This record gives sequence, C-alpha cells and structure tokens, in this order.
Amino acid sequence: MSPPPPPSLLSLAIHSALLNISRFSDLSSLPDPVLLELFEQKTLRAGKLTEKVLKLFMATGNDEILLFIEKNIQLIGAQRSSNYIGRVRCCCVFERECLFGPEREYKMSYTVKDGEVDIVIAALHSDLTSFMEEWRPIFSRFHIIIVKDPDLTDNLKIPSGFNVNVYTKSEIDRFVASTGAKLHFSGYSCRYFGYLMSRKKYIISVDDDCVPARDDKDLVIDAAAQHITNLSTPATPFFFNTLYDPFRPGTDFVRGYPFSLRNGVTCALSCGLWLNLADFDAPTQSLKPNARSSRYVDAVLTVPTQALLPVSGVNIAFDRDLIGPSLFPALRLAGEGKLRWETMEDIWCGMCAKVVCDHLGHGVKSGLPYVWRKEGGDAVESLRKEWEGVKLMEEVLPFFQSVRLPRSAVTAEDCVLEIAGMVKERLGSVNPMFGSAADRMLEWIRLWKAVTSESPTSKAV
Amino acid sequence: MSPPPPPSLLSLAIHSALLNISRFSDLSSLPDPVLLELFEQKTLRAGKLTEKVLKLFMATGNDEILLFIEKNIQLIGAQRSSNYIGRVRCCCVFERECLFGPEREYKMSYTVKDGEVDIVIAALHSDLTSFMEEWRPIFSRFHIIIVKDPDLTDNLKIPSGFNVNVYTKSEIDRFVASTGAKLHFSGYSCRYFGYLMSRKKYIISVDDDCVPARDDKDLVIDAAAQHITNLSTPATPFFFNTLYDPFRPGTDFVRGYPFSLRNGVTCALSCGLWLNLADFDAPTQSLKPNARSSRYVDAVLTVPTQALLPVSGVNIAFDRDLIGPSLFPALRLAGEGKLRWETMEDIWCGMCAKVVCDHLGHGVKSGLPYVWRKEGGDAVESLRKEWEGVKLMEEVLPFFQSVRLPRSAVTAEDCVLEIAGMVKERLGSVNPMFGSAADRMLEWIRLWKAVTSESPTSKAV
Repeated sequence: MSPPPPPSLLSLAIHSALLNISRFSDLSSLPDPVLLELFEQKTLRAGKLTEKVLKLFMATGNDEILLFIEKNIQLIGAQRSSNYIGRVRCCCVFERECLFGPEREYKMSYTVKDGEVDIVIAALHSDLTSFMEEWRPIFSRFHIIIVKDPDLTDNLKIPSGFNVNVYTKSEIDRFVASTGAKLHFSGYSCRYFGYLMSRKKYIISVDDDCVPARDDKDLVIDAAAQHITNLSTPATPFFFNTLYDPFRPGTDFVRGYPFSLRNGVTCALSCGLWLNLADFDAPTQSLKPNARSSRYVDAVLTVPTQALLPVSGVNIAFDRDLIGPSLFPALRLAGEGKLRWETMEDIWCGMCAKVVCDHLGHGVKSGLPYVWRKEGGDAVESLRKEWEGVKLMEEVLPFFQSVRLPRSAVTAEDCVLEIAGMVKERLGSVNPMFGSAADRMLEWIRLWKAVTSESPTSKAV
Repeated sequence: MSPPPPPSLLSLAIHSALLNISRFSDLSSLPDPVLLELFEQKTLRAGKLTEKVLKLFMATGNDEILLFIEKNIQLIGAQRSSNYIGRVRCCCVFERECLFGPEREYKMSYTVKDGEVDIVIAALHSDLTSFMEEWRPIFSRFHIIIVKDPDLTDNLKIPSGFNVNVYTKSEIDRFVASTGAKLHFSGYSCRYFGYLMSRKKYIISVDDDCVPARDDKDLVIDAAAQHITNLSTPATPFFFNTLYDPFRPGTDFVRGYPFSLRNGVTCALSCGLWLNLADFDAPTQSLKPNARSSRYVDAVLTVPTQALLPVSGVNIAFDRDLIGPSLFPALRLAGEGKLRWETMEDIWCGMCAKVVCDHLGHGVKSGLPYVWRKEGGDAVESLRKEWEGVKLMEEVLPFFQSVRLPRSAVTAEDCVLEIAGMVKERLGSVNPMFGSAADRMLEWIRLWKAVTSESPTSKAV
C-alpha cells in the first residue's frame, strides 16, 4: 500500500502562519504566494480575520489583497467582528488528510485582565512597608490578599494606596471554628488561606522577603506580567523544545517538533526563580554561606509530562480555577520553623499539583520570572535542629512518581481525593506525618468545595 | 512502629560536602564543627584525601587539623596518593540507617584528556579554510576527523597545523565494498562514517556552516570545553532541578531535591544550541525570513528521563563508548537535500539515542554550548519541494514514546537491535521508509561490532 501523499511545505507554512496570525506584527516579509494563500484561502475560512489582522494584511500593500478587502470588507466586518480568543476550531488546511483531525480543539493564547488576578502575600513580617513599596509599581494594579501569620503578634504595617484584603488570626479562627476545619494556617502555610478566600481565576504569590529583581539589562522585572504571560500562553509538555518556551517572542518550535503538538496545552502553574539567595536547603546553604545566585537565565520552559520538580512556594503563580484545589497546607513537619528551608509544605503540594496537571493534560512552566530574595536566617543554626524534611523526600519522590490516577478523576478535586487515598494506603505506615497530610488533603477539598460552591469564581469585567 | 530517627542536618551537610569535596576551592567559610567532622571522620574514612584536598584543609589554618596532619601525613600520603577519580564507593555517613546503602556506587566528575576526544566534521563545503581558521583556537588541541560528502566533487581545502584524518569517497567506497554495507554516507550522513572510524571515547561534531559564537559578555565560547564539561559532570534525569545543571559553578541542587539522587548519572549526550540562524524547519524559517536567534540562555539542563527531544546534529557531543552505536545514518528521506531542514537523520537517531540513554540509565543534557550558525539556503525554495519529513514526525514521536526495552538489553548495541525490530514490526507498514531505516540500523550495528572488535577504543595516555 503506498502512503498518502504528504502535505506540501507550502501548506505547512501557511498552517503554521495561521496558528500564529494573531501574534504577527508585520507580514511584509512574507513571499507573495504565501501571503495570498494565507489571506484569501485560510484566514477568512478559519474565521481569524479580526480587525488587527485585517490591518496587518492591508499594511502589506499587496494589490490583490487590497482589492479583495475593498470588495468584501463590509461583509467580513459584519461576520467577523468579534474577538476570536479562547477555544476555536482548528481549520483543516490539508485537503486530503489532516494532521490534526477536523474536530481537534486547541488553546489560543489568552488575554488576562487585571481583575482576574489576586496577589496573595503571606505576611511573616509585621512591617510590610518596604516590601509593598518595592512592589508598588508591579502590584498596585491588582487586588491583593494579605494573610498575616497567626503566630505574629505585632500589628501589620501596610502602606496605603493598594486595593487590599487583610486576613488575620481572628478571621482565620472564625473560619476554622465555623467549618470545623482541622487545618493549620501558620507560618508559610497562612498563604493557603488566601488561596481559599480568593475568587479570582489566577493567583500570584511571592514571599515577603523578596523584592523585584533586575534582568540582565538592569531593568526591573515585572514578575506579575511575566507570570501572566507564562500562564496565558500554551505549555508544551509532550515533547521537549530545545529552544525553550516557543511562545516567547524571538523563538519558535525547533526542527523536528511535530506540527500536531504545536498548539500546546493550557499552562496551569508558573514556577518562578530567585536571584541573590537561592532556595537551597539548610545543609547546602550552610556549606556555602557566601554563595549567591547571580546567573540570570533568560528562559522559561515547560517541565515535561511525568517529570516531577521541587515546586518552591517562594515565587509562583497558578490558574486557581484549574488547579487551585491541589495547592494546600498538608505536610506539616514537627520541627517546622519560620524559615523556608525548615518547611516542606510547598514541595509536597507542588508534587501533587504536577501529578494533577499531568493527569488533566495541563502544563507546568519553570524559569522566568526572577525575584530578588533578601538575606535569610542562619542556616548553620537550622542545622542544629533534628529536621525530618530532607529525609522525607526519599519517600515522597518515589511515591509521587508511582501515582497513576483513574480516568474517572476529571477535576483537580477528584485527583486530590484519589491521591490522598493513596498517601494513606502506601505512606501512612512509613511515617504518621504522611497520614496526617492525607487527612488534611481531604479536609482541604471539603473546604474548597464548600467555599467555591457558595461563591464561584467571579468573572472579570 | 515509630520511624527511625532522622539524620541530623549536620550529618547531611557533611555528606553533601563530602560528595563535592573535590570541587571546593576554599573551605575557610565552613564553621569549625563542620570542618573538623568533615576532615577527621569523613574525608579520611571515605578515601577522598587527595593532595589537592589536603592542601584545602591545610589552608584553613585550623589548629586541630594541622596537628592531625602533622602526626599522620606520612601514613596518609602513602595510603591515599592516587587520584580518586572515576567510580568510588559511597561512604555511609548515616550511622544507623544510610540513605544510599553502603554499596551504592556513584559517578564522580571525570577529567577528560584531550587525547580522548575526536572532533568530527562533515564537509559539505569543499573550502574549509575559514571554518577551520575560526575554530583553530578551540579545535587544534584535539584530533580531528573530516569526512567529505561523497557527492562533493571539488578538492577539500584544509589549512595546515591540525592533527587531522580525512576520509573521502574513495575510503568510504572501499569500506562499503569490503563490508558489503548497505549504508549511505552522503550529505550530512557522511559524519557517521567519522563516528564509525573514531577510536576515541568522546566525539564532538559541529556542522561546517557554524563558527564559534560569543557569550553574553562578548567572549568567544569554547564549545569543545563546554561539551566536555557537560559530558564529564553528572546528569540528573530522575528529578528536575529548577536551578538547571547543579554541577555548574554558582549553582546547586534546590531545596527538596532528594540527597540520594544528588550523585546523578553519567551524561552520555550533550546537545548544544545555535545563535543567529536557529535550527528551524523550512516552513517556520520561510515564515520568518528575518528572524535571528539572539537570546543567549546561560543554562544547561538534563532532559528528564522518558521525555523525548528533537536532537539536532548541528552541534552535539557524546560518549562514543556508551552510546556510539545509537547515532547512525538510518532515516533517509526521498527528497533529502543538502540543507539541514531537508534532513531527518539526526532527529530519528536522536530519538533512538534518548530512548537508549533512558533505558541504560544515562543522562542527556541540552543547552550550552552555543555555536554561531551562518546563513542557510533559501527556505522558500525548499517549500516548493514535496517533503515528507514534517509529516513523518507525527508517526515517529508516538512510536519512540511507546518503546519499552527488555532488561536483557544491556548495551547500546542490544538496544538498537531491539528498537530496529520494533520499527520494522510497528512502523514498517506505515511507510516503506521506516522499514529501510530499520534495515540500516541492523546494518549499522553489524558494522559497529565488526569495526570495534578489530580495534577497541584506545585509552588516552
């Protein structure tokens, strides 16, 4: 049997252009045959002729295109005036055999409105003045949730001029009492209370010992904007792109990347990094007391499906609608302190979130944006503690690597319930801490469902 | 049952220091108790007291250490004078329960000698003068193999002053005739003839349209040295380190990274990148004729196990002893031309090499070093060809993602034979090209075994 004739490269070029038409800023470099085919046959047929795209084509000055627009523009305007963002049907450009299937849906890049974002800050320090002032240019356009560590006794100091909700011990205690919740919201875990209270689609969370960093050109990094870019452009978990995130300007998919995978999937979790003080554990930090992280790596990448990573809570953002239920305060160490390297809550739920993303077909990105992490505490002092976190990872990683979720788990809530059951069954006897973590995961889902059924995510206007 | 007491952070710190003792350049910042424990109890017991390490400890000026050395140095010198590079036994630092098991072996960073490396260049252009002159400061300390594309008729021009072996059509024809080999060594595939002829442990191969790039500080990049660093430091395929390659200076393992995985595994393949002209396919390149890759991403990372990547042959290095048999000229396209974007040989065998590495427990790194890729041909011209490479990837990726090799496959040769059988069985009916590729893979292994049994890899002196 002879194989069907392959598509011509011209048709692939046009298909590729079509997928990305909304990201082009100039079409004048396209060869005429490509330009004409792209306009007449594809853009119109695919329903992608927005006003912006129309202007792009007009700017080429191509006579045939201008003539066509002159004849048909009223009709087109009436038919195609809406903004084609969100899920759209793929247009089949292969006449005989489509690589994608005519019904395949893909995720376009999504425009996030400021009103869809909550900045969540866990206040482990009472005086947030300098922290908030440093972040003012970046955070002030968003709604902010500040959760005060219930162990903190001094009054919070927050400068004015922000749109902010503050939750303190009294609100947390009232909520815990009213729901009978058996969850701890102290230390770094207080931020999870903010995740629960938020009604927004996206959350960005940065530790209160971090300030905006500067990039390799010495420009202040807008970490919020970069997190939003990560979340609003597709992730590519099924094949590694050696040129990193292909949706960043100046790059693309490398030779050999299958066209059927170039639409990507929704990115649900964006893990940012740190300059100055890196997020090491106490043993590593104590051995390198003078080591500072100074390498600005100008990259974002999708962590491949099935590959796990240690998610740090220092600087993250996520799609709360999609994976909010999988970021929770579950693993609490007996010796847990107020220093990042004495905690494990983020590593544990980060594993859970990655497993959930892999199962549900969402992506996780790591890399940009950086924040500047100020000096931490005394790592050598932390060394004197008998701390079980490091040891636990030897059990935690193999466990999460072995988790396979059933097809019946179709939401993040379903997935967390399944994982909690597995934790209890497989890890409960290894260390009682794991059993407690499983209980808290179940508790978290109960609360999440209760809270979100009361007032579902508000849509930004 | 109560769990065993966890190790103290002090013991973990010491264990971590011990693993990396050969990479320290200064111990003076270590707290005294760590320093003493590290020296007296661990370094000596682990057999890691080389002359360099001894000097490190002496430079701290610590009285107790100096006293100990004064008393014992002759004995130590006699016992421990050899260079402890290569596979060594892990020293158990956990008194009651070792995380690693006392018998676990790990791979230390390895010092590569120039005599262990071949530079292999596929000559698709006859005048290599400017190419070789640009690379002279980097390549001249190595032995070089140049394989002339048999389709090239003009005489090769190679400047003097290099230690070089040249293979041309007559050598290739003679070899093919003597072995009855059914392999094509034309176009980019001629470099595989060099891989076969090499007797070195490591091969570095760069296309002849690439010259040394400059880094973000405008310094010329020594691509050979960076490839060698990638191959001679461990890879970490089992868990993603968000701070990229932890074995690069200035970085480390991030919080949450299990200590038992910090030894890493041997890196067998190093995939470098490109500045200026990126390695796009013809459709992508033709749509962005003015796009040039200018972002210098200062990172190397291990591509996680089970994640596949499109390996480009433009700029790679590999451990020939470990995975040489898995880099071969097998997938040959009917319309294959002399431009990179008209070929697929590297993508195909790159998939194979990654699957082999995953199965055998070796690592694959991607990222640095960059080379500067000069202008290519006319991508729009290539678009006019009916080219099947892009279409094939839709079959190729799912196939390689599904490959699972039996435990009985313990060498790269074994693995390739197994994969060839699966290609024939599962892809042979999809497209006759795959059947031919499988035949060539079998043929390649036959030749590899014959050639290497005649003269095994020479050890560098």
